[in-house]
Amino acid sequence: MKFPLLTRDMVNEFELRLSKVRMAMTEARLDAVLVGSTVNLFYLTGGVCRGYMYIPVDREPVFFVIPPAEPAGEIFSQIRKPEQIPDLLAAKGYDIPARIGLEFDDLYYSEIERLRKVFASSEIADGSRVMRRARLVKTPYEVDRMRDDGLRHCAVYSRIDRLRKVFASSEIADGSRVMRRARLVKTPYEVDRMRDDGLRHCAVYSRIDSCYREGMTDLEFQIEIEHVLRMEGCLGFLRVAGSRMEINMGSLLAGPNADVPSPYDFSMGGAGVDPSLPVGASGIIMKPGMSVMVDMNGGFNGYQTDMTRCWTVGEVGEKALRAHECSRAILRDLESFARPGVEAGELYRRAARIAEEAGLSSCFMGHAHKVAFIGHGVGIELNEAPVLMGRDRTLLEENMTLAIEPKFVIPEVGALGVENTYVVTDGGLENLTPFNENLAAL
Amino acid sequence: MKFPLLTRDMVNEFELRLSKVRMAMTEARLDAVLVGSTVNLFYLTGGVCRGYMYIPVDREPVFFVIPPAEPAGEIFSQIRKPEQIPDLLAAKGYDIPARIGLEFDDLYYSEIERLRKVFASSEIADGSRVMRRARLVKTPYEVDRMRDDGLRHCAVYSRIDRLRKVFASSEIADGSRVMRRARLVKTPYEVDRMRDDGLRHCAVYSRIDSCYREGMTDLEFQIEIEHVLRMEGCLGFLRVAGSRMEINMGSLLAGPNADVPSPYDFSMGGAGVDPSLPVGASGIIMKPGMSVMVDMNGGFNGYQTDMTRCWTVGEVGEKALRAHECSRAILRDLESFARPGVEAGELYRRAARIAEEAGLSSCFMGHAHKVAFIGHGVGIELNEAPVLMGRDRTLLEENMTLAIEPKFVIPEVGALGVENTYVVTDGGLENLTPFNENLAAL
Repeated sequence: MKFPLLTRDMVNEFELRLSKVRMAMTEARLDAVLVGSTVNLFYLTGGVCRGYMYIPVDREPVFFVIPPAEPAGEIFSQIRKPEQIPDLLAAKGYDIPARIGLEFDDLYYSEIERLRKVFASSEIADGSRVMRRARLVKTPYEVDRMRDDGLRHCAVYSRIDRLRKVFASSEIADGSRVMRRARLVKTPYEVDRMRDDGLRHCAVYSRIDSCYREGMTDLEFQIEIEHVLRMEGCLGFLRVAGSRMEINMGSLLAGPNADVPSPYDFSMGGAGVDPSLPVGASGIIMKPGMSVMVDMNGGFNGYQTDMTRCWTVGEVGEKALRAHECSRAILRDLESFARPGVEAGELYRRAARIAEEAGLSSCFMGHAHKVAFIGHGVGIELNEAPVLMGRDRTLLEENMTLAIEPKFVIPEVGALGVENTYVVTDGGLENLTPFNENLAAL
Repeated sequence: MKFPLLTRDMVNEFELRLSKVRMAMTEARLDAVLVGSTVNLFYLTGGVCRGYMYIPVDREPVFFVIPPAEPAGEIFSQIRKPEQIPDLLAAKGYDIPARIGLEFDDLYYSEIERLRKVFASSEIADGSRVMRRARLVKTPYEVDRMRDDGLRHCAVYSRIDRLRKVFASSEIADGSRVMRRARLVKTPYEVDRMRDDGLRHCAVYSRIDSCYREGMTDLEFQIEIEHVLRMEGCLGFLRVAGSRMEINMGSLLAGPNADVPSPYDFSMGGAGVDPSLPVGASGIIMKPGMSVMVDMNGGFNGYQTDMTRCWTVGEVGEKALRAHECSRAILRDLESFARPGVEAGELYRRAARIAEEAGLSSCFMGHAHKVAFIGHGVGIELNEAPVLMGRDRTLLEENMTLAIEPKFVIPEVGALGVENTYVVTDGGLENLTPFNENLAAL
């Protein structure tokens, strides 16, 4: 089992993430944090493994791994169960922490109770918040992994210039090791991974219209797109946060199915094809007069980009065209408005105002059922912090990565709008999913 | 949003499940249980919805639903947040329970802590165990949903005879409303759903060899099989229990990749194609001398059947053939041995003994990394109780549904063996995935 971040050439990235975790620990007055959830371990190691990473605020971390993972260096220690951790820490001369963070939002109740007994003499506090805080602002490496093909048209030198800017601004947000990172990103391995992640999502979307055949159902259309996604390297698996969020490889909504509410907290609904997974395509035949919204998942290398485009079958009428243009107008407005220091909730309020001025409030972000956000953070999981809703007071920071999805539902037509994934820069939003936004006919 | 079990014609099934939950509550001395996890709500309602079902041991349950779900009958009550529950219970004249079960293994720590405050005056106990106990023995309806095409060759009368037997035995296990259930299962809707679930998994497997083309990678082969699965109606989503179990639509292992350990607790490993999902197909080209193990998911209607078959490319040698036959011999042995009252662990021990007598211990259930079980319960989730490992003392009961998967890894060749999903009957195991088990060449 390989842990990319723990290998020698990735040690700087690991140190950078560790410093962000420790900064958050200091804010939360934690002496140590014990990380056991898959997502947070992936963040800390770049790999997936069973075990726990123990991070003291002032000493080297210890990564307790469970077989078949094997100890492969100073930082590793093999265990069969978490009850062995205190003795192993004592053997290394580590004190038992006075106050330790455990992942309240990422581990089941029973596991936290078990770990509480392991650290019986310690005060127990929430470690999930600490990890969320650390992950909120992305490192330059993470931005690079999520960055789309902004770089692909550039020659080597101009590419370096762009990367330098990303690094320079990270220094401001984090006050830390940005220049050291610049060297890492120049490696061919890095550039390849970055391309992998970004190019393929757009490449798949460029083939969507060729997946369509007249008389198809929405589900058949979705399956053909899934097939292209998989052939292009999508891992076929969507990491979604929260025990109540479930979806297969994405959502495709045609015609009136877009106006069917879903119990999940996604921006759009859809009936699904079975009561066990009531979201998305319903098996409806795509007919003239319908719009078709494709919100299918990226996910080629452990990171997600989130992207929506719409197509039409035949004529969809003036209101639908107007709604689609309104979505694009909102994106253009936010792309230049959103920047470090802006309140996340203000993005929602501006978007709602633009929709209202266009007389489209009643179908903005849903119709029969509306959601009160226009986007969300995105990274390892599809739905990360912050949530772009009216009351969210998070101040945007450089290198946050956001999916913004102003969408409309015209009951008789279907869903309209565009979703892009962006990285926050000090010049506004940089689009990580630059693909034609026109409403084209299938 | 429809809740099949709460509709009039499904009321008996709902009552049956409720009685099983209440029996488990009585054993655990609970006055009430509050169910909020998706999987357990699906069990209780047949649908997916955000909310909580409150079940007192001696009164009617109340289903608190969160919008967009709407109250549609006596049992429903709409809420925005769980803090509203106590007042609504008081308004209905319900006492606050002295001891309430919350799902320790199915909800995150922070949600349990929130609910603990909602029921601040109640003693809090584990409700996950209660729900697991209730779900351990399947109702006849559940068995029918999971039953494969055992019924498809039968005429109407012999079909009814078989169903009657299933019902008769449920009476013994549960002491309850089996005959009332018999009428439900005879409805065309039921028979259709039952067929949906079972027929399609085998139907897809019958098309696997036609997905193969010479020179393909294991991943390309898997993607073609996924495509057939989706076109046949598989929902493209695998419910797996546990925050550390992740997989896309199943596993396909070719040649030496079968001997690469994975951090997940599946029976077999595989490197995967990216460190973010290290399991299954690795992108290896399938070449003569390799075996190819296909363990792809069913999942057409909210229930899973679990099924593995193997193919070969060219000649794989005598040891591989012997291992495959040994797997089949183990299944034949257990099919007649396993029955109500037998200890689950004994299935593992018998299987290990047969493998040992065949001189195949070193490659039984893995080689570089071995697992210590030969199967597991299966139902709404892929991995349910019991686990068929040596030390499991669970006594088998009628209508438990088990996936049994005696597998072997010959390092230079690949994985061999067969997996079927069975229902426990008093005459032994009934195969829910009856499909050719031969080791055929691709």
